[in-house]
Amino acid sequence: MPKIVDHDERRREVLSAAGRVIVRDGIDAATTRAIAKEAGYSNGVLSHYFADKDEILLSALRQSHQRIRERLVGKAEGLTGLAALREVLLDNLPLDAERAQESRLEVSFWSRSLASERLAEVQRAEAEELRAAVRELLGQARADGELGDNPRADEELDDLAEHLLALVDGLSLHLLLYPDRLTRADAERIMLRALDRL
Amino acid sequence: MPKIVDHDERRREVLSAAGRVIVRDGIDAATTRAIAKEAGYSNGVLSHYFADKDEILLSALRQSHQRIRERLVGKAEGLTGLAALREVLLDNLPLDAERAQESRLEVSFWSRSLASERLAEVQRAEAEELRAAVRELLGQARADGELGDNPRADEELDDLAEHLLALVDGLSLHLLLYPDRLTRADAERIMLRALDRL
Repeated sequence: MPKIVDHDERRREVLSAAGRVIVRDGIDAATTRAIAKEAGYSNGVLSHYFADKDEILLSALRQSHQRIRERLVGKAEGLTGLAALREVLLDNLPLDAERAQESRLEVSFWSRSLASERLAEVQRAEAEELRAAVRELLGQARADGELGDNPRADEELDDLAEHLLALVDGLSLHLLLYPDRLTRADAERIMLRALDRL
Repeated sequence: MPKIVDHDERRREVLSAAGRVIVRDGIDAATTRAIAKEAGYSNGVLSHYFADKDEILLSALRQSHQRIRERLVGKAEGLTGLAALREVLLDNLPLDAERAQESRLEVSFWSRSLASERLAEVQRAEAEELRAAVRELLGQARADGELGDNPRADEELDDLAEHLLALVDGLSLHLLLYPDRLTRADAERIMLRALDRL
């Protein structure tokens, strides 16, 4: 009787292995050979599931984003406007070990996206989803009167969304690169203060 | 008569070539072989000046920072407090072709620094210089009464410095990754507005 292989499970295993190699050794070191070794499969098995290294990396990024989305749905359940925005933005900071791994994966993709149009396209589509969510929550906050009496034009909310998203990526990066300079508590306080001052 | 070689000039040529390869093809592709080819030298000549790839990359980063510092000294001459801070922060955004190159180099180093303690140390030291400068200018602005009547504690200025630096890196990254979403004019306006609201 032929051995029954769970292909979805294998794909997930390979992607988890890819994530571990990238976070531990850097994205340069995440060759198909290194990923196969980490997953405990041969190069041949890997090539059955993924066309090349970029496809593995992209799938690992998407898998990570999917996990983030599922977690967020739980955290933001029943919340709207500013309260939901707070959850979304804090969740995107590497404030615990799990999210530090996710952020390291993210940072690894930034530089690689600058050199590969194929990766850049996926990066853009994924980032646009987060931007649209943040912008929508700001619109909700305005409608609910949470942004004060000062009337805010649409363009101002567009800018606020970009400011908050730039802050999230900048703080995430600095938490990873400069842990002795910026602590998790610092980053969380700075993010919350930015929201308080909207 | 032996040929006279200007070693400093050669080093600079190699570093400029390294910068071009990183920006054009990505930091993964910047092997010593590729850098030698770009500079028009043999691998042997390169190894005479630099021990390994990391040493070339670090020297290229330092050369880029040195160029930025020299440009900044000119721009901020005679300015203090908020006016000087405005020049420093705007100069760090990729608002023209030259600074776009510098920012691409920077982003390339971020991910590599996460996987190499040797690069991370240099990255940290260089970033600390900018942080200290921004923090000092905020202190000057406070002393000159430019931050309004609301008294600001030292810790608040520390947070403001981190916020502004995170914003600079986040906006720089997004300008490079999402040029159709965020224009140079957008990034400049968002940065200036952040300073206006200090």
